Amino acid sequence: MIKQYTYNEIHIKDIFSRTEEKNEIAEVVTEIIATVRQKGDIALREYSLRFDGAALEDMEVSPEEMQKAYDAVDKEFISILEEAAEHIRGYHEKQKRSDTMYMPREGVILGQKITPLEKVGLYVPGGTANYPSTVLMNGIPAKIAGVKEIIMVTPAKGGKINTEVLAAAKIAGVDRIFKIGGAQAIAALAYGTETIPKVDKIVGPGNAFVAEAKKQVYGRVSIDMIAGPSEILVIADGQSEGAVVAADLLSQAEHDAMASAVLITDSKELAEAVSVCLEEQIPLLPRKDIARKSIDDNGKIILSESIEEAIEIANQIAPEHLELCVDNPFEYLAQIRHAGSIFLGRNAPEALGDYFSGTNHTLPTAGSARFASPLSVDDFIKKSSFTYYTKDALLKEAEKINTFAQREGLTAHGKSAMIRFEKEGEK
Amino acid sequence: MIKQYTYNEIHIKDIFSRTEEKNEIAEVVTEIIATVRQKGDIALREYSLRFDGAALEDMEVSPEEMQKAYDAVDKEFISILEEAAEHIRGYHEKQKRSDTMYMPREGVILGQKITPLEKVGLYVPGGTANYPSTVLMNGIPAKIAGVKEIIMVTPAKGGKINTEVLAAAKIAGVDRIFKIGGAQAIAALAYGTETIPKVDKIVGPGNAFVAEAKKQVYGRVSIDMIAGPSEILVIADGQSEGAVVAADLLSQAEHDAMASAVLITDSKELAEAVSVCLEEQIPLLPRKDIARKSIDDNGKIILSESIEEAIEIANQIAPEHLELCVDNPFEYLAQIRHAGSIFLGRNAPEALGDYFSGTNHTLPTAGSARFASPLSVDDFIKKSSFTYYTKDALLKEAEKINTFAQREGLTAHGKSAMIRFEKEGEK
Repeated sequence: MIKQYTYNEIHIKDIFSRTEEKNEIAEVVTEIIATVRQKGDIALREYSLRFDGAALEDMEVSPEEMQKAYDAVDKEFISILEEAAEHIRGYHEKQKRSDTMYMPREGVILGQKITPLEKVGLYVPGGTANYPSTVLMNGIPAKIAGVKEIIMVTPAKGGKINTEVLAAAKIAGVDRIFKIGGAQAIAALAYGTETIPKVDKIVGPGNAFVAEAKKQVYGRVSIDMIAGPSEILVIADGQSEGAVVAADLLSQAEHDAMASAVLITDSKELAEAVSVCLEEQIPLLPRKDIARKSIDDNGKIILSESIEEAIEIANQIAPEHLELCVDNPFEYLAQIRHAGSIFLGRNAPEALGDYFSGTNHTLPTAGSARFASPLSVDDFIKKSSFTYYTKDALLKEAEKINTFAQREGLTAHGKSAMIRFEKEGEK
Repeated sequence: MIKQYTYNEIHIKDIFSRTEEKNEIAEVVTEIIATVRQKGDIALREYSLRFDGAALEDMEVSPEEMQKAYDAVDKEFISILEEAAEHIRGYHEKQKRSDTMYMPREGVILGQKITPLEKVGLYVPGGTANYPSTVLMNGIPAKIAGVKEIIMVTPAKGGKINTEVLAAAKIAGVDRIFKIGGAQAIAALAYGTETIPKVDKIVGPGNAFVAEAKKQVYGRVSIDMIAGPSEILVIADGQSEGAVVAADLLSQAEHDAMASAVLITDSKELAEAVSVCLEEQIPLLPRKDIARKSIDDNGKIILSESIEEAIEIANQIAPEHLELCVDNPFEYLAQIRHAGSIFLGRNAPEALGDYFSGTNHTLPTAGSARFASPLSVDDFIKKSSFTYYTKDALLKEAEKINTFAQREGLTAHGKSAMIRFEKEGEK
């Protein structure tokens, strides 16, 4: 049964389950990374046999294997994947940025050059479920940014990868796929092996070992984020239907037992209705055990005085997904400061964003929406600043630069500006 | 004496010195962070006494202390700081972004909302030198982004902070300043103590302990980057003056012994001239011992066949600073793919970007310009996506979402879309 609270009774930091760094995992991962750096492909083959039961002949998926997988998927689902990809492409195309140039003073040109990353590694989890949507959500923004090579890794239980995942990879434009998963795949992407190329950035979700490995290689390569369990926060007014709100909460609760589903409402009646509907709906779900545990452990209903107060609470929580189930959601949009993805109105279930609307489903969790953003084309480009000065323009500023540098005790910095104006003998 | 190489003789990955993670530092830092989390202010006071010789009464710099420091700095330097700040403001203002909205299909609105971070921590190193420029380069972009509170921390040797650093903080618009440095300051910003507020992001350079602490708290808060020793790569043609190129190389070499200064030229004569000029100029520098060690250990001259080949080598190195000392630098700009900040032509010494031109001096090091960018206003905002659907628009897509969700084994996801169209009895 879901628990109910008032604003005064809750501790914001306990709203969503947060995993603390586990030292045992860190140690195992450190060892795996060191082994892959030292032994390369041999280590990858050993780990694949041990963890995935896969005695890999070729680590890489061949073009024929790819085509065969694509052909094995039914036309209906291919067409759904294609349409989802088109929506995702449309939204992310709008995120593309241009080089800029700016002439602030006579003889001075400053600017910013945008360059795509060259090689990106995309981790796709294997395990209990298959996630073709993950492939689309990570691969498409990378392609739009202009990434030259997207290298996907995924564990192949018994040597096989799900055909729908492979079909999604083909649609997203993934360039190469390797049948390697776990921390060893992250190590291979970060350092390179004989077979797997070193990449510039690693994106994609994974289990605790994959997350820890990403954290450990961060700095040597870039990473997207350290994602935690999924969360949904629904703000709903008294006009909302209990069954609908309950279904939206359960769409996150079914992810895993650590997932959190929270409702904030200013209506005691809705709170009761949702509570009842949850109990009705949970037993009907194929993943009822997971949803049950998630709702019992992490599910919450918070009663607020008003929708405004509900939004204030949401800002303190900074949820991954925020639904705003009211008639006039745009009235409140400006008040929402911290949320990964916002679903406005009564007809925007969060599942839209997971699969189909076009926005990205890789989102900041565990309150990190305070400082992090949905995955976007920005994640696959980087910027270089540039500076051009004429000699006259430099002359106007050289003395000041020299003074500034001397105050910081860095005289050679000052000299590098001044020397351009010194006479032959002085240099 | 600087060493000379041809393209064939060099190993790209050895060009710049890269520090491997040091386990001893990691352990010390882990303990400091745990202690600050547990004991809060008491731990901060103990560490300040032990590491900085500061028995702090008030950890926070008072408004009077701030004003007094500002008044103590000479007018000439204040005016240079103000002008530098104006240039930095001008350049970074251009980086501001707007919310966007997009209507891809009937009844569908998608968009991206930009929100500034609320609290940002700014680390300013103490130690041998004082860096007012660091305060401007980090504080100004944060203010332009709209950050509500910039909280600066810096070690106060004997309880004192340099007056020029405090003046720069006033000009940059820093809100609060605490006399705490080292890994303990990073821990305080990441977790909060009785006195120091928890922030959303920590920026600014620091020693190996600070860098390790930033790495360890990454995920809980955002960080700018893990910066390594400074680097400059100068590409210069045969028309360049040896003394000028040598001075530019030394402007990085004087930073610290780990810094790297590298020249790539297609002119054997320039290579010789620069080598001679380095030997002439080094003994004249106040920081000659540091520059000497940096040039001897990490300095390199690489002879290329052409400027094009020099740029190709530079792209493989991905330097923090890249100077392109040729007559027509814009001809080559498009070819440069990986560099933090690019200085074009014969009159753009890198020191311009350190202090005065307006671009940022916080730049990716150790080859991370392959995937990372100069610090910018983007570092102080985050994005939230938003989605609005009419009921008709959802109806057109609900079945496809349901199918997609079922293929991933997540039926409750599908149900959340379908339930909005089910009759009362079916829900």
